[in-house]
Amino acid sequence: MKPAPEFTPDVMNEMCASRRLLSDVTSKWGILVMLALQGGTMRFSTLRRRIGGVSEKMLSQTLKTLEADGFVARRSFAVVPPHVEYSLTEHGMELALHLRSLVTWLEGALPNLPLGQELLSRD
Amino acid sequence: MKPAPEFTPDVMNEMCASRRLLSDVTSKWGILVMLALQGGTMRFSTLRRRIGGVSEKMLSQTLKTLEADGFVARRSFAVVPPHVEYSLTEHGMELALHLRSLVTWLEGALPNLPLGQELLSRD
Repeated sequence: MKPAPEFTPDVMNEMCASRRLLSDVTSKWGILVMLALQGGTMRFSTLRRRIGGVSEKMLSQTLKTLEADGFVARRSFAVVPPHVEYSLTEHGMELALHLRSLVTWLEGALPNLPLGQELLSRD
Repeated sequence: MKPAPEFTPDVMNEMCASRRLLSDVTSKWGILVMLALQGGTMRFSTLRRRIGGVSEKMLSQTLKTLEADGFVARRSFAVVPPHVEYSLTEHGMELALHLRSLVTWLEGALPNLPLGQELLSRD
């Protein structure tokens, strides 16, 4: 048996695969899909309503990427009309916790940041 | 005195300013700059060496954005040749902790994700 190859992911390294993963999960819609799915299993149309501004095309593309990365599970039901449900995998749930803590911090910090100060100083 | 306006940031809302902030700090180079600066105050050239693949133009643009957002402080020294140093603000340090925990999780999870499995199965 061959020994397992060495594999120490490092996002600072341009060649590391973790960069692609990072970019998938921190894309604008990637983050919002992960956060929305923390609310539980959802149909495409519900997901789309939850995420303000996402187009059908971008949502479907984002879901495909997150499914291929192992963060989202897709389940389709052969009913009439056919329907499809999306949910977080176990890895997805862990990832979502990290994204949630980032976003919660950011939402909380906004009023104290220059952008928030600017908004608050308007009428 | 006017009461403070209501302000409950919500990234799910297309119109919320937190979306812009989220996109600034989760841009590819935004994340990597924040992580690199966790190592302490740095000159432009050091920062550029740390972040594999970043161009001078992208690094300078990213630093300007993060400075305007209140996460990075820029200090220039009127010496010959002139030099400029970058560091994290207090808000930046807090933000960097969240980004670091996300990235550390991602790097750790990679070998168990489809992308990592695929890489490990190659020779």
